[in-house]
Amino acid sequence: MGNSFRDMSAVEIRRAIRTGHYSRHTAGLAKGKMQANLVVLPEAHALDFMRYCQRNPQPCPVIGVTDTGDSLFRTLGADIDVCTDLPSYNVYREGKLSEQHGSIRDLWRDDLVAFALGCSFTFEHALKRAGIALWHVDHDRTVPMYRTRMPTVAAGPFSGPMVVSMRPLPDDRIAEAIKISAAYPLAHGAPVHVGAPHEIGIEQIDKPDWGDKAAIGTGETPVFWACGVTPQVAIAKAALPFCITHTPGHMLITDIPEDAQNPIIAAADLNIQAA
Amino acid sequence: MGNSFRDMSAVEIRRAIRTGHYSRHTAGLAKGKMQANLVVLPEAHALDFMRYCQRNPQPCPVIGVTDTGDSLFRTLGADIDVCTDLPSYNVYREGKLSEQHGSIRDLWRDDLVAFALGCSFTFEHALKRAGIALWHVDHDRTVPMYRTRMPTVAAGPFSGPMVVSMRPLPDDRIAEAIKISAAYPLAHGAPVHVGAPHEIGIEQIDKPDWGDKAAIGTGETPVFWACGVTPQVAIAKAALPFCITHTPGHMLITDIPEDAQNPIIAAADLNIQAA
Repeated sequence: MGNSFRDMSAVEIRRAIRTGHYSRHTAGLAKGKMQANLVVLPEAHALDFMRYCQRNPQPCPVIGVTDTGDSLFRTLGADIDVCTDLPSYNVYREGKLSEQHGSIRDLWRDDLVAFALGCSFTFEHALKRAGIALWHVDHDRTVPMYRTRMPTVAAGPFSGPMVVSMRPLPDDRIAEAIKISAAYPLAHGAPVHVGAPHEIGIEQIDKPDWGDKAAIGTGETPVFWACGVTPQVAIAKAALPFCITHTPGHMLITDIPEDAQNPIIAAADLNIQAA
Repeated sequence: MGNSFRDMSAVEIRRAIRTGHYSRHTAGLAKGKMQANLVVLPEAHALDFMRYCQRNPQPCPVIGVTDTGDSLFRTLGADIDVCTDLPSYNVYREGKLSEQHGSIRDLWRDDLVAFALGCSFTFEHALKRAGIALWHVDHDRTVPMYRTRMPTVAAGPFSGPMVVSMRPLPDDRIAEAIKISAAYPLAHGAPVHVGAPHEIGIEQIDKPDWGDKAAIGTGETPVFWACGVTPQVAIAKAALPFCITHTPGHMLITDIPEDAQNPIIAAADLNIQAA
């Protein structure tokens, strides 16, 4: 990746993506801005999906929802278009991955609703700032993710196991890492488990269900966080006729500061008047 | 109020309410448990209302949502029935207060959805524990509330001004009060304004729009928090054909600890299985 993309603002990188000049993953881009998972589905399923997120705030922290048929995430920044401003999209039909696109303009419909869900980049940056090394970052791999036996709370057709990501941490930094990540509830918050993988239904720690295996060194313990793949598993299980997500790693870049407690551009900036 | 009610657990006081043995306000009851504002409306408006709450998290922090037609708040505790477990309900028709009831069992319909929204009791208890006196509590009055010129972010038919509550605080405790309340985002979080009422559109501080006037002493400054009356104003403005809320002060008492970051009874306790 050229340094030029790394130096761009959120607005600039979204413009580069929209105009077809950037189509790779978004890790490390628009430093200090919140990035998000994307889920797009028909309004007929949107209330149930939003209830599913409310009931499972650690894997599914909602940071933005569009109006039905409106492709702009108006509360997340300036001119953020769901259809064109992510580098890559996965299209699911009847619960199966059907195709990938660099734009979903031609697939957009008047009955679609888009959800932005917080992602782990936020707390990873905070851990890094505290001097806590992350193996998958240092080795340029994808974080290992696992299907667990921990249930999520169902809503309508959405249910299924919680998916977790794992980061091996030095034993003497775990308490600090818990405290740091707990301060970011919109980015999965505190870990859901520390220590014994089998207690949450993970039999083979060196065979993740998604991502790459990570080495657990001497004096290190695996730490598990709720993961944004959880809603993707719930959506696949629900076998919706039609649904779109971001392609893993290719996130929505917002204008919201990474440490914002409320992921909303101020109403005044949105040019909305009180009655 | 008899001490016996004050000593009851959340489950016990809900049972007393359900069986008609308690019908007064809920301040000071079930200590340590989260209390909530109630909004019940038809599913046709539920997605827009939930979007309105997501876009205005300070006045409208969602802590629970029922399935459509299900009168139980399953994620907030054991056997919490929307229809019978609050001491008093306000019924609105065409945006106007129509009647009050001690039960809404006869009004319940298969298309209704109930929302529980966090309330200010939580941070008031925390302020009190820190030794910060609250005038309206000490004088047994209702907190003063004001319509402001601060807009909320609209969603569907829901829009309008933010309503705030005001607590006069000693100047040397304000920084601490901000920090304490900021830790409770599900109970309106940090203040939205400190100091000059006219800056947020309040012309007469001694004439609140709701509640009782509070005395502002020498060396004290008015501090304003987002208020749960905001969604009631938005609902009235939307003039929905039918809607139910709690009667002010007569809240839903949950089993969720007041300081919980996630207002969800663990999925395991809900007897829900992973797939």
